[in-house]
Amino acid sequence: MPIVQVEIIKGRTVEQKRQMAKQVTEAITKTLACPPEAVKIIIREMEKENYAEAGTLFVDK
Amino acid sequence: MPIVQVEIIKGRTVEQKRQMAKQVTEAITKTLACPPEAVKIIIREMEKENYAEAGTLFVDK
Amino acid sequence: MPIVQVEIIKGRTVEQKRQMAKQVTEAITKTLACPPEAVKIIIREMEKENYAEAGTLFVDK
Amino acid sequence: MPIVQVEIIKGRTVEQKRQMAKQVTEAITKTLACPPEAVKIIIREMEKENYAEAGTLFVDK
Amino acid sequence: MPIVQVEIIKGRTVEQKRQMAKQVTEAITKTLACPPEAVKIIIREMEKENYAEAGTLFVDK
Amino acid sequence: MPIVQVEIIKGRTVEQKRQMAKQVTEAITKTLACPPEAVKIIIREMEKENYAEAGTLFVDK
Repeated sequence: MPIVQVEIIKGRTVEQKRQMAKQVTEAITKTLACPPEAVKIIIREMEKENYAEAGTLFVDK
Repeated sequence: MPIVQVEIIKGRTVEQKRQMAKQVTEAITKTLACPPEAVKIIIREMEKENYAEAGTLFVDK
Repeated sequence: MPIVQVEIIKGRTVEQKRQMAKQVTEAITKTLACPPEAVKIIIREMEKENYAEAGTLFVDK
Repeated sequence: MPIVQVEIIKGRTVEQKRQMAKQVTEAITKTLACPPEAVKIIIREMEKENYAEAGTLFVDK
Repeated sequence: MPIVQVEIIKGRTVEQKRQMAKQVTEAITKTLACPPEAVKIIIREMEKENYAEAGTLFVDK
Repeated sequence: MPIVQVEIIKGRTVEQKRQMAKQVTEAITKTLACPPEAVKIIIREMEKENYAEAGTLFVDK
């Protein structure tokens, strides 16, 4: 606790995920007053055919 | 907002997802009174070994 | 299967949810070729202080 | 209903998932008083670069 | 890790949740070979107007 | 996109959520190279009887 889930379109590098995990954890611990060990982050990656806005798949944009 | 997540077993075509995204977005905008741009749809696909009903994996059915 | 989760800001009536559940189920069965009994819909309602876009809570908009 | 989602790091065998689905379903039906048919289990598998604790990706541990 | 989410209709007692958490944790640790400390369980409770099967809200059944 | 879900135990103030939303959005935009408008954050709050670690509900700790 807290458990954070981040949904993104596929294509980020491991280095981007590494920096994101580090900085989101810092943002959470600083603002919600909890130790870093308590923060779990799950990253979910989606193919462009698996995300839609306004009824249109990203693969069609 | 609204954010819609649709969990399905793997195996649908892109055309099926395209139609689903379109028609679910229409159903949402019509019934919940929101603009199409507000509707985000995330499709999650599962392997048959990653879904169970009544304690039995789909891969065993 | 399919399992659908719909995240909305609090404030819709039961009648709106009723129509939404009905029409989203129809959209899913028609486009993904599955029986209505297979479609489960979970509605999650959020307070305006529990949703943010562009870093701003809805309660502050 | 109940719908159970289990997030794990990739690497379990189908046999492990089979036993997990069976025993978690038993635990749910026994303690929450519902029939086995009502229990749906979704297993989500993550790559080690998609999970972080204390700001560190598992791939870096 | 593993992180388990259990979606149920409102109405269970704290004692039922206590037993469920205990027995699901045992089922997970035994079948997936992980220590009890690694297992986190999130229980989500829904009102009957927030769950539908076959296009019908539970509040209408 | 990205869509971020943050699960926390109930009890944070609106000001804490406000700061969290702001700083998590900054962390995401800086590390994943996306505009602030693209970042949606859903906060989910749990009662202490709805979260367990190592098989024990938080309400019992």
